[in-house]
Amino acid sequence: MPASAGPTVASPREAAEDTPAPLAGGARGPHALHPLLDTTLDALAQGAATREGPFPAGGPEAVTARLRALAGPALPETGTGAHEALHSLVSALAEGAADPAHPHCAAHLHCPPLALAAAADLAAAALNPSLDSWDQAPAATALEALTTRALAALAYPGRPAADALVTTGGTESNQLALLLAREAAAKAEAEKAGKAGEAGKAGKAGQAGEAGQAGERGPAPLRVVCGANAHHSIHRAAWLLGLPAPLTLPTPTGVLDPTTLQAALAELTATGAPTLVVATAGTTDTGRIDPLPAIAELCRTHGARLHADASYGGPLLFSDTLRPALAGLDHAHTIAIDLHKLGWQPVAAGLLAVPDTTALTPLAHHADYLNAPDDTRAGLPDLLGRSLRTTRRPDILKIAVTLRALGRRGLGDLVERVCAAAQHLADLIEAHPSFELHARPALSTVLFRPTGTDDRTTAALRRTLLHHGHAVLGRTTTPEGLWLKATLLNPHTTPDDLRTLLTLVEGQARR
Amino acid sequence: MPASAGPTVASPREAAEDTPAPLAGGARGPHALHPLLDTTLDALAQGAATREGPFPAGGPEAVTARLRALAGPALPETGTGAHEALHSLVSALAEGAADPAHPHCAAHLHCPPLALAAAADLAAAALNPSLDSWDQAPAATALEALTTRALAALAYPGRPAADALVTTGGTESNQLALLLAREAAAKAEAEKAGKAGEAGKAGKAGQAGEAGQAGERGPAPLRVVCGANAHHSIHRAAWLLGLPAPLTLPTPTGVLDPTTLQAALAELTATGAPTLVVATAGTTDTGRIDPLPAIAELCRTHGARLHADASYGGPLLFSDTLRPALAGLDHAHTIAIDLHKLGWQPVAAGLLAVPDTTALTPLAHHADYLNAPDDTRAGLPDLLGRSLRTTRRPDILKIAVTLRALGRRGLGDLVERVCAAAQHLADLIEAHPSFELHARPALSTVLFRPTGTDDRTTAALRRTLLHHGHAVLGRTTTPEGLWLKATLLNPHTTPDDLRTLLTLVEGQARR
Repeated sequence: MPASAGPTVASPREAAEDTPAPLAGGARGPHALHPLLDTTLDALAQGAATREGPFPAGGPEAVTARLRALAGPALPETGTGAHEALHSLVSALAEGAADPAHPHCAAHLHCPPLALAAAADLAAAALNPSLDSWDQAPAATALEALTTRALAALAYPGRPAADALVTTGGTESNQLALLLAREAAAKAEAEKAGKAGEAGKAGKAGQAGEAGQAGERGPAPLRVVCGANAHHSIHRAAWLLGLPAPLTLPTPTGVLDPTTLQAALAELTATGAPTLVVATAGTTDTGRIDPLPAIAELCRTHGARLHADASYGGPLLFSDTLRPALAGLDHAHTIAIDLHKLGWQPVAAGLLAVPDTTALTPLAHHADYLNAPDDTRAGLPDLLGRSLRTTRRPDILKIAVTLRALGRRGLGDLVERVCAAAQHLADLIEAHPSFELHARPALSTVLFRPTGTDDRTTAALRRTLLHHGHAVLGRTTTPEGLWLKATLLNPHTTPDDLRTLLTLVEGQARR
Repeated sequence: MPASAGPTVASPREAAEDTPAPLAGGARGPHALHPLLDTTLDALAQGAATREGPFPAGGPEAVTARLRALAGPALPETGTGAHEALHSLVSALAEGAADPAHPHCAAHLHCPPLALAAAADLAAAALNPSLDSWDQAPAATALEALTTRALAALAYPGRPAADALVTTGGTESNQLALLLAREAAAKAEAEKAGKAGEAGKAGKAGQAGEAGQAGERGPAPLRVVCGANAHHSIHRAAWLLGLPAPLTLPTPTGVLDPTTLQAALAELTATGAPTLVVATAGTTDTGRIDPLPAIAELCRTHGARLHADASYGGPLLFSDTLRPALAGLDHAHTIAIDLHKLGWQPVAAGLLAVPDTTALTPLAHHADYLNAPDDTRAGLPDLLGRSLRTTRRPDILKIAVTLRALGRRGLGDLVERVCAAAQHLADLIEAHPSFELHARPALSTVLFRPTGTDDRTTAALRRTLLHHGHAVLGRTTTPEGLWLKATLLNPHTTPDDLRTLLTLVEGQARR
């Protein structure tokens, strides 16, 4: 620890009586940060060396006990100083981390971030702009506008007013998509009932009056239709928003079947219910992409809105060779894309794209201290309608730095690498006598299992690999039963890494 | 730029054909991060030096034009390499930042983060644990549990099962508080209607069935009652959740008046409507604290739930001398506290505390790939009920490092410093012939204005200070008209800084 270069490990009495702990911002911030970052990097290296693998061994009880022993009391009366606290807690966290940068950590849509994105994110933390008003984030506001529009243009080619909101991830993007659909439906109902002027003035078509309640806002609330393959956050968002539970169509093949959807839409739209269809481009379970062109055509025919949850698959847009798999995506009214999955950003880096910025009008919101009318008239940008959050970190900075550093082709190359790794793993599994492959991978997810095992054994195998800290694999249930799931998101993973992974799993399965 | 120490600024062709950009995690992560962090710190220093003050001059058009010129195309076909991208975008962001570490940047509840907290946050970005399942965040899960319980114990002394969720800020905390109240009300209605067993089994008492809608879940939906002094996010949360608009009581004195509240509660509860009262401990406009003991007593008498939005004032709990101002806080069913206000954390660091962890049950949620029943039975912690988000950054790390480094007393000292600074600024204003003070500050917010100005002039004065980049002040309207608002959150601010600030404002006002 370079204690001499930084603030000394002061006793808390001194800290309380003398100068307060240094700040990250201002002219002196970089100087104050330097020795603390050295301590952080030392602690990260030490933790990784102690762990020695993708995951800490011993299971939840042992890992928790170890962390508690290292962390001590969470809120001591007097402090231990910056370097001691940083070193002990960061090394404890690193020692007990599931490390997505290790090629055998491949359970979830949990990517290893690029070093350059993490370094950029430090600047966001140090400057601490908050994107709820322009006077807290002048340059960050402009950078966000520039970057989100460039990303939206990728999702909606040929739409000059395409726009995107920055979210905490697919879950919030899906929530916003349902909210925008709920408000559009309420506005249409209000217009039908001849109350358009009033509802429009209030800017909140969906909100009932003082004495009303959500259910009174129209005879037919929004119905959400999705496949059983859709992300769980669709159901949770409907619950949150006070909407009926989504109509969930069976997806035995792993994707939404247009024939099944057509029957459901015919029945629903006959009742006059405003309808939102949710399609998935890259399911969490198998990585498959719903047939977007056919679904978009059905939505058009039946007057339904379409939301595409491309949280996983969206970044295929960066790749010339893989982009065709997303044909039809731009017919969706809203698109969720996560750059903390394929995009290699530290969490959070979610996006919700729309073909035209006016589609975001229902989110308009007023708070006098942030967007007073006279300030807005005087030219201060009004940011409150860009999120349901108020205080908001500039997650756009790390994204913007990554886009500039790698370019579209550089990012496309990373996407291609992990998809190629998945194909290679599938090859290895198909050639392996002890393993069964579920299907050729659509994106970078590979489902497999030892031949001839039952579900209980497969589930226990996954937990045992986790318990020993040897490998972190996920799980998926299909009509054929339970599978191990490898979600490959590490562009550095080599064919050798994949062979070793299979050897590990095989060895454990044999025991 | 130490380009020699890090990855060279490769042409994108090379980047695409050779080794992919380095990762932040793994054994090699710290080595890869080191030169990139040097570049980031250089860029932060350069940006701050170019800005030379609290805020970039020139207004929105000039700042945006400058950022666009420096940032170039947001998504180039080929990249410029890590160091070039980091340096140009971080320095552009720093140059155009509102810097809360500058003592004349005091508009909003927008704090200057501690260097140690920003350094800790880097580790969160590099390791990238995601708190939606234990196998993505083993040690982070344990650290979050340890730390949130210690903070909850501070808010709810003597409640051994007190707990807290980590949120993106007061807005999400308020949203969750309303959601928990909505679900509690729906559960009570269901129990009244003898459907308790069924609703309990589903675990989502508030969600209507397939064919139902929110409005059908009971004859009396939750009514939210708050003061006009409450944060705007209360109204927005009600809209989001499909609840009736809150009943908003006038607060001409700046705080919720118990007599007004009593009348409202008597009327509402007579109708049998389940009711949630929202009190504020530290309003955004003036920093005042609603009379919590009297409000809590009224809620008890009328069978209403109580949510305390202590996003701003909550950290007074750290201070022995200031804590008494929060007497009665622990009677609230839910408490919002932000550590990115008084707490000196980079965004986000929100908390929602509850007196007993069972109060969080309505958030329970199931997704087979994250918390399959057999995995939970086998002892893997189930985290989905800890947030409405799925992927979730460990914001707890920077908080835990800060608590350990400073201790309760060290944090209390920082809170006392900024409250003392506010008292001192009020003294200076009272003694100044050209300024009018609104009232003695309750926390660290000071409202003042040049004597004898009208609202339009005051609003223009604020914008002019902003335009010149001289000072960043907020605004508040009270029954006495518009005021300039200084929200003092910088513990390094000196009496000299405050005198200079007044001199600046006075000079501008004279022009």
